[in-house]
This record gives sequence, C-alpha cells and structure tokens, in this order.
Amino acid sequence: MAVRLLPPDPADLHPVPGVELGFAAAGIRKAGRLDLMLMRFAPGTRVAGVFTQNSFAAAPVQICREHLAAGVPMRALVVNAGNANCGTGDIGLRAARDTCAAVARLLGCEAREVLPFSTGVILEHLPVDRIEAALPACVQGLGEPQWARAAEAIMTTDTVPKGASRTLEIEGHVVTVTGIAKGVGMLQPNMATMLAFIATDAVVAGPVLQRVVRSVADRSFNRVTVDGDTSTNDSFILAASGKAGHSRIDRDDTPACRALEAAITEVAQVLAQSIARDGEGATKFITVTVDGGRDEAEALRVARSIANSPLVKTALFASDPNLGRLIMAIGNAGIADLDIRHVNLHLGDVLVIERGGRAASYREEAGAAAVQPDEILIRADLGRGSAHTTVWTCDFSYDYVKINAEYRT
Amino acid sequence: MAVRLLPPDPADLHPVPGVELGFAAAGIRKAGRLDLMLMRFAPGTRVAGVFTQNSFAAAPVQICREHLAAGVPMRALVVNAGNANCGTGDIGLRAARDTCAAVARLLGCEAREVLPFSTGVILEHLPVDRIEAALPACVQGLGEPQWARAAEAIMTTDTVPKGASRTLEIEGHVVTVTGIAKGVGMLQPNMATMLAFIATDAVVAGPVLQRVVRSVADRSFNRVTVDGDTSTNDSFILAASGKAGHSRIDRDDTPACRALEAAITEVAQVLAQSIARDGEGATKFITVTVDGGRDEAEALRVARSIANSPLVKTALFASDPNLGRLIMAIGNAGIADLDIRHVNLHLGDVLVIERGGRAASYREEAGAAAVQPDEILIRADLGRGSAHTTVWTCDFSYDYVKINAEYRT
Repeated sequence: MAVRLLPPDPADLHPVPGVELGFAAAGIRKAGRLDLMLMRFAPGTRVAGVFTQNSFAAAPVQICREHLAAGVPMRALVVNAGNANCGTGDIGLRAARDTCAAVARLLGCEAREVLPFSTGVILEHLPVDRIEAALPACVQGLGEPQWARAAEAIMTTDTVPKGASRTLEIEGHVVTVTGIAKGVGMLQPNMATMLAFIATDAVVAGPVLQRVVRSVADRSFNRVTVDGDTSTNDSFILAASGKAGHSRIDRDDTPACRALEAAITEVAQVLAQSIARDGEGATKFITVTVDGGRDEAEALRVARSIANSPLVKTALFASDPNLGRLIMAIGNAGIADLDIRHVNLHLGDVLVIERGGRAASYREEAGAAAVQPDEILIRADLGRGSAHTTVWTCDFSYDYVKINAEYRT
Repeated sequence: MAVRLLPPDPADLHPVPGVELGFAAAGIRKAGRLDLMLMRFAPGTRVAGVFTQNSFAAAPVQICREHLAAGVPMRALVVNAGNANCGTGDIGLRAARDTCAAVARLLGCEAREVLPFSTGVILEHLPVDRIEAALPACVQGLGEPQWARAAEAIMTTDTVPKGASRTLEIEGHVVTVTGIAKGVGMLQPNMATMLAFIATDAVVAGPVLQRVVRSVADRSFNRVTVDGDTSTNDSFILAASGKAGHSRIDRDDTPACRALEAAITEVAQVLAQSIARDGEGATKFITVTVDGGRDEAEALRVARSIANSPLVKTALFASDPNLGRLIMAIGNAGIADLDIRHVNLHLGDVLVIERGGRAASYREEAGAAAVQPDEILIRADLGRGSAHTTVWTCDFSYDYVKINAEYRT
C-alpha cells in the first residue's frame, strides 16, 4: 500500500560508532516476531528528545522526561512494540521503571541512564516479565549495527520499515547520522504516532543537542499528518555518542553545527515522509506548501487545514481536482483577516485559483492531470507576506476506513 | 443511509402566519427537480442571521450580511440549490444582487429587502437567467404554506428532507415556530454546510431577535459536526413576522422571550440532529456530552476533539469500544493542565474509563454492547468544574469515502 516506499537497503544505513543494537522476540503481543530492541550507547553519549503533547502521555514518555531532565549522559534505550503502556496509571509507571532497571542490571549502569519506549495497544498492562526474560538475548546480540533490523523491530501496523542515513565531514572527520522510525496513522503535529530514533557520532554539548532536536522536529515530524489525530506515545530521540573525533560543538552558530543540523534534518525528513507514504490506506503522497504568510504560524495553519481536510483527502484519493474543497480548506484555517483576493493556488505546475477565484487560464483537464499521479503537490500563496512552510500527508481511502474499523478485531 | 430519520410529516409542519412559500424547477444544475424556493414575508417581518466563519464566504453570504446590516424589516428570501455562487468574485456578487433585484421587481419591494442563498457546487457562475425565468412560477405559487416541499427544494446531497415545528402560547395567543434545513457533510462549527430557515409569527424587536439567533445557533447548529470541515455558504436565518397578536418582546429577560427561545432552540436542535443523522455515509448517530469542564469552551474543545476524530469515528462504525482512541481524543483537545487522574468516561451507561485508566469494573462485552446500537452516547467527565456541553455527530464509514470520492464524477 505504501506510496513509493521501499525498505531501506541495509548497506545504506551506516553504522554509528558508539551505538550498538540488540533484538529479541519477547512475545509481547504476538509470538515469534521481533518486538524488543535495545540500543546501547558509549559512555558520555548525550541524548535529547521531544515528546507527545497529548494529555494522556504514556508511562514511558513520563519516565523519559524524568530521566532526561537530569541532564546527564544516557547509556541505553529500550523499545517494545505490541503494548503502549498507556492509560495504565501507577502500575504502568512501575512497569516502565522496572524495564529500565532490568536493562541497567544487565548493562551495569543506573536505571536513570536508560530511556524506555513502548508502542502498541493502549490501556493494557505491559508484560514486564516477558521483556525481562528476553532482554539477555538483546544484550548478547549487541555489537553488530543492524539498523535495518532495528527498523523492523519497532514496527506495529507499518507495512514498510523506515530508515535513513547520511554522512558529513567536520574538521576532516567523517560524521554519521542514521535514524529509524515507525508510525502510519494517528499522526498530527505535535507529533506523529511515532517513534523516531536518530543517532550520530558527532561530538555535541547537551544544550546544543536539545535545541537541535526541537528545531529538527519542527522541520520534519511536526510537519507530517495522516488523520489529524495525535498519539499518547510519540517520541523523537536524538543521541550523539561523541566518537567522531572532531572538537565539541558547543554553540549553535558555527558551520559545524549548521552542517550537522542539516544532515540530521535530512534524515528526519526522509523518515517523516516515509510515515506519510506508509499512511494507513495511502494511495497518494501529498506535499502541501504555503507561501506568502505573514508568519510561519499562519502558513502552517493553512497547510494543516488543507492536509487534514477529509474532503480534500477523499477528493485526491479519487484524483479529483476539487477546487471548491481546496478553497474551503484554506478559508477554514481561521485567519481572521485573510483577503481571498490575494490567494493563489497551484496543483503541481497548474495555476488553478487566481486572486480567490478560478484562474482564467484554468482547464479542468490540466487540473485532473496534476492530481492523477501518486505524488501530488499543492502550492498555496496567501499573498500577505514572505513566510512559508511545507506539510506532508496522504490521501484518505476506503482502506483507511477498513484498517481503522478492523484494527483490533 | 440516514440514521433513524424520516421525512417530516407535512401535517406536523405548522404554517406560520405572515410567511408564504413558492417553488420552481429552474434547471440550475439538473432539469426537472425543485431547486428554487421563495419565502415571502409580511411587511414588518424582522430577520436575523448567523453565517459561515470561512474566509471564502460565498457571494450570497456577503450580500445577506450587507442587507441585514441595515436593520430594516425584510420582505423575502430566495434560495437556489445546485450552485453555491462561491469563489466567483465580482461576477458572483453581481449575480446575487441581480437575483435580489429580480425578486424585488416581482414582489414590489426593494432589492435590499431580499436575502439571497445558494448551495451546491463551488467556483461556477450562477445562471441568474434561469433563476429569473423561474421566479414568476415561484411567485404564482405563493400562498400555500408547503413547508415540507420547501425542505425538499433546498436539498442537495441530502437523502431525507429536514423540517420541524413547535407551537407555544404567549399571552393567550398561539405562536408557531417552523423550520427547515439542508446539509449532510462539510459540517463543523461554526457552522454546518448548511442552510437553515426558521420562521415564527412571534412579535419580536430586531435586537432581541439578533441575540436569540446567536444563542440558538450555539445550542444547535454550532454543536453538530460531520467531518470537521466548514462550508463557504453556511447560513442560519430566523424570521419573525409579528402576526401572533401578543405584545412585542422587547427584552431578553422576560418569560415570553425565554419561552420563545426555548421553542426555537427545540426546532433548531431537531434540525441540527437531522443533519448529523443524514451525515454522509452515516450508520450511527453519536451524542457526545462533556461534563466537569472549568468553562463551556474547554468542554466544547474536548467534545469536538472526540466527535471529529477519524479514529474514534471509524471505530464506532465497526461497533468497536476502542477506549484507547477515546482517551487519545480527549488528550488531544489541547487543555494544557488536564489531570487525567480526574477523567471518567461512560459509553452509554457503562463506566469504561475511571480516573484516567480502564475502570476496574469494565468488561469488554459491556462496552461492545454499548456501541452496538445505531444511537450511541459518549459521556466524558473532566472532573475540573461544572461546565458541560453536548455535540452531535455520526460515524465514519466506507460510504463517507465513496460519497466524497465520487461526488463530482
């Protein structure tokens, strides 16, 4: 079902010095499939993260926030699929702590140096005993940097594993950035139902890494949406092992920091787009750009209003250049003083709306041709300023309903 | 497809003294179907309205606002189906003015005493010539108060005409309130894709009527949603002919005003609920109540977050008591300091979420039984205060996608 999305070639996912991976089939929800992943970090690894804004933040999210608040290096993260450990109250918090403690015992570190992540069904208790039983197998396998296998281990309803990798050079040293993600629905800023882990061997100070993770999230995971819903477990983690050998990046405004952030953003954007391409029931990958906003916030409101409109998304599923629904969606963004006489809209290269009305040059055949492919570009210009933004989404198909009406049964 | 919704019995839609109806088949989009409706008001009739918040307000909405701003009595309104006259720029404004002028010539009044309404496809020019050609037939038919036929004349993709009527007594005089509406999708506060016209023979001062129309809208049409989208033409009009014979209602805080507003609210709620029952592809009618909010605004945010969630709506289509999606939707309402440990949720009479987690007494069979019927009640309690609200919606089915992917083709 995924739109032009293939599993990453393992050879393209470069190992990250200082980061080791291990896996196991713990039988958390289904027997025999990989559902547990352990990532061990070299001593001194700095980790920063951003998390769901949902009020029902899952237990592991709460524990991650607590452990990261200490500002100390981390030694490991552990991810289980099959159970989200959400809506589970104090028992859930204890389960997340117990998971960290079990990892710490095996790795010889402190529990507060371990970050827990869970994804899967909500409101059911996490079977910590099965995780504890399977962790030794994860630890035994540590070493070989099988990022492609890690991408598989964290999948739930994903149809394709998601990974990306880049290298850059800082002071003559090769620096690697490699990431994996999972998520296909219940997506919306901030953030997708989504777990994303990006690791680098760059040498970065903690506060700089924290700023970078937020900035990257705002250019990637917070710009993708499937259905406007937001999950309780969304997490994006950025880890820097410090093994690359260049001098430490202590400030944001250096060429090294900018180059590193650019590479991380590229990886994050590939992962975020992969999530929309694998959106539940997706048959089209849709890029919405909005130019001419007074500020980025209003450009984003318009882009999200288009990208989340069920009427726009069902029309695009039908390859219908339905201009009425597009202007309806722009008009619904809640920009109080929007003057529609300055609004232009392109489908691909075709000018369809000019100064708020149907473009004089517009022919329906051209519009139909623009929305026929499985990759569609919608470009709105508000004509009010110079701010712009981009959002990625997918269409809304019969299969979206089928998948979500039958997920649990 | 509509959920427990039958056409109104013509005998139940009481005539409103001072209000006459006429119809014609103008062939605006399809030949041979009723698509033009004229409502003539007795001299002195007060009219108030609320309109779409969409930035792309259609030409007729702009003209209505202009004519109502004068604060003078109205003599007529004219409604066409088949073409929304939206995104049509200056040509569209002229078309709406020309329509009013044509009505005024036939009725012997001023164009500014006529209100125009259009519903149907967007971005196509209104064929005013066909409306002008058909208006004499409307005028000839004026007289017999065929409200059920009026409800038919304004339908677009509605599957069932929508009407309701109530009577009350003021100072010993019988007062009638009768209304019709159309709309099935692209619905969201503020307001539904929706035209609603309620008329009464009550004697009401203009400013009081204006306050009443807003208050009623907030308890009815602004509480119904199908897909979270909002149309460019939404209008709710309240007309008071003043023929009932009681003394004029000049103030809000009188028993007569309260009784009248209660009757109008009842009619409007039946119409609003009819819209959700006839929602595109609807198989379930869903009532969402939220109690325990600090204020009504936050209760409404939570109710809309539940009612608009595609994941909740597809689960209910499948009769799946998916608690995870319900708490996800509550958590996404954007209430920054919501303490989930005070949140309870019922499906019908079944307590399913207690203090933010699965209720100890909950059994999945009971939840499944609660979401099996075609009328479902979801009751959330935020445990923060005493404000409450109610929103009506429908589920999200294969047919929603089918209807919206094929509407224009």
